[in-house]
Amino acid sequence: MNELIQKLTPLHEVRVPTSRSIGNVETKYFNFANHPNFLPLELGEEIGPLSIAYETYGILNKDRSNAVLISHALSGDAHVAGTHWGEKAPGWWDDMVGPGKGIDTDKYFVICSNVLGGCKGSTGPSSINPQTGKPYGLEFPLVTIGDMVNVQRHLIDYLGIEKLLAVIGGSMGGMQVLQWMVAYPERIRSAIPIATALKHTPQQIAFNAVGRQAVMADPDWKCGNYYGSSVPAKGLAVARMIGHITYMSDASMNEKFGRRTKPEKQALKFSDEFEVEGYLHYRGDNFVKRFDANSYLYVTKAIDYFNILNGHNLENVFRNLKAKVLVLAFKSDWLYPSHQSQEIAKACKLAGVEASYCEVNSTYGHDSFLLEIEEQAGLISNFLKTVSNGHFNGSHEA
Amino acid sequence: MNELIQKLTPLHEVRVPTSRSIGNVETKYFNFANHPNFLPLELGEEIGPLSIAYETYGILNKDRSNAVLISHALSGDAHVAGTHWGEKAPGWWDDMVGPGKGIDTDKYFVICSNVLGGCKGSTGPSSINPQTGKPYGLEFPLVTIGDMVNVQRHLIDYLGIEKLLAVIGGSMGGMQVLQWMVAYPERIRSAIPIATALKHTPQQIAFNAVGRQAVMADPDWKCGNYYGSSVPAKGLAVARMIGHITYMSDASMNEKFGRRTKPEKQALKFSDEFEVEGYLHYRGDNFVKRFDANSYLYVTKAIDYFNILNGHNLENVFRNLKAKVLVLAFKSDWLYPSHQSQEIAKACKLAGVEASYCEVNSTYGHDSFLLEIEEQAGLISNFLKTVSNGHFNGSHEA
Repeated sequence: MNELIQKLTPLHEVRVPTSRSIGNVETKYFNFANHPNFLPLELGEEIGPLSIAYETYGILNKDRSNAVLISHALSGDAHVAGTHWGEKAPGWWDDMVGPGKGIDTDKYFVICSNVLGGCKGSTGPSSINPQTGKPYGLEFPLVTIGDMVNVQRHLIDYLGIEKLLAVIGGSMGGMQVLQWMVAYPERIRSAIPIATALKHTPQQIAFNAVGRQAVMADPDWKCGNYYGSSVPAKGLAVARMIGHITYMSDASMNEKFGRRTKPEKQALKFSDEFEVEGYLHYRGDNFVKRFDANSYLYVTKAIDYFNILNGHNLENVFRNLKAKVLVLAFKSDWLYPSHQSQEIAKACKLAGVEASYCEVNSTYGHDSFLLEIEEQAGLISNFLKTVSNGHFNGSHEA
Repeated sequence: MNELIQKLTPLHEVRVPTSRSIGNVETKYFNFANHPNFLPLELGEEIGPLSIAYETYGILNKDRSNAVLISHALSGDAHVAGTHWGEKAPGWWDDMVGPGKGIDTDKYFVICSNVLGGCKGSTGPSSINPQTGKPYGLEFPLVTIGDMVNVQRHLIDYLGIEKLLAVIGGSMGGMQVLQWMVAYPERIRSAIPIATALKHTPQQIAFNAVGRQAVMADPDWKCGNYYGSSVPAKGLAVARMIGHITYMSDASMNEKFGRRTKPEKQALKFSDEFEVEGYLHYRGDNFVKRFDANSYLYVTKAIDYFNILNGHNLENVFRNLKAKVLVLAFKSDWLYPSHQSQEIAKACKLAGVEASYCEVNSTYGHDSFLLEIEEQAGLISNFLKTVSNGHFNGSHEA
């Protein structure tokens, strides 16, 4: 199996840290929302105390004007770049974030936190519910992208940052960027939503919904009460396999696998035979080791709820925004197709926001935001340069 | 729930027989491949005895030249049109097949058989294995589209038909049409492959593979030995839900559901909330009542194996074909996108086969071949008229 994995896993997925990696980093924790000041949630419940895992790279400058917040996608975490002690694999966007890279940690103070409801250090359904002394499971309240961003705003307050130079993220991270643009327009100088959408469409909801059904169909799920016993591994793996198909493109699958079959004979009828089957299975099984099934339900549900137009029309959704916006999309992304990104840019322009739209020509599908780094890095670094120069000039002159 | 289903199920899915329906029809059975003349299979095994369910409509003319074979898709069966005694719902292509319809049973003798490996009357994994007296389960040999078509050829022999006027089918049915074009070119006068492909791509394989994983992840599957106990209902429903997403389009889902939520409160966290979730769930659960999970594995595997180019190049795959070909595709079909149908037409033309390609402008996605009847019927009936006139003239003059 190891041989197969190596064969099927191209270099960009092994992600060996480059010489320009930021090096060793560590996760910190921000604790707040203690009794009686629990955090009120958008859907009416409240939660607390909260512990939010986050990482920062680079140095916050004297006037606290060089902070860049990165928001992660469904299966991401606070560990964007560099390596943790004793681990080989760097963070999920190490190619993009580091000294001299697209998001240059020599220039910017980079922040990323694990989302509320997640399972990578922030309070979520696998955390201990202080009222029962047991993991929350489905006692955990439903959360939204709005709640995730509200938590990030508390973190930014705690770090003493009045205004972010930029907020950047792809996929669900891009939804958080859009949420910042609407909920806290006065707290950001610029925004880069990548490969995302103003609202989740029924087809996008459908893919998430089937993934949730796969998890809940697994008898080991036990209505979310599986902590301390077997996790719903098969169901979560199936959910992740569905996801992976939507993250790739027909072209990238053709290039990577074609119709090639595995060299070894199948152990059983219907065991993996085509390379693409083995790869999806491997990715599915691997995901189970690093992700909590209940978090998968909560976070995908938050994504499905996302509709930044809720109560707005396209013309006025960004009406209070003064920030500059760079909207990025990828040609082969069929999960969040480029016309959805074009609509974001249009909404900005209709509201008089200074926005530009760029479509990167990549075959990686939705995964392009993680894999197609070079052109994306150039677009982001130049945009940040423009925004920060404008800002630094402005503040120096004031 | 009934109310919801009615609300969510547009007319074309309830399929009330029209006044021009062919009326009551019945399924017949063709038994062959008895010991020792078992049917040899493409992958090296053999099987027998076989019972193949089929239906015929209309009258075979004196010179047996008006026979049209319809091949069904993954979840189809021999019951194409009309109604069975005591049942309300007509066959799966009743809008297309009947007196005066696109495939006119007043003119043509229409034949359709359930595929080998299926579960609608033809021998498949749920049939009794005469060697053990128990259902085959995974003792059933792996079959291919080639084997399915070979069985159809035996049926045609049995019916005394030397040459089919046309072979017609969509999706997996289209693969069978392509197989006829290559395996038995001298037995067909024309062919209409609809919304199909010369070979299954890795993305298409991936969707099927994840469906199979969902079935096999269900502990009730028991390596296929579930007959007489609970069927793997949850796994098969998830597989069908994945399928349904790929059969629809973003546009048709938008039109049908948008982001609307169900009026009733959710029973539990993560139970169906959006209408699209409820619809997919309903379709998944419904499928379980009418389809065998092992047949799902065998038939999707046969589809994944399909590669009519195997051992051929595009230029010579149809080199022995004298039939006329009409290739149909649908604009919003992203599972079998139109460029794959264009490649079929190109392969025909490269081999000097008289072929035309038509793309129907429908928003139904891959399901268009079942739902977008009017334009499709016009194209098919005119094509059949041309082909049969040519033929009838020819045979009368001979």
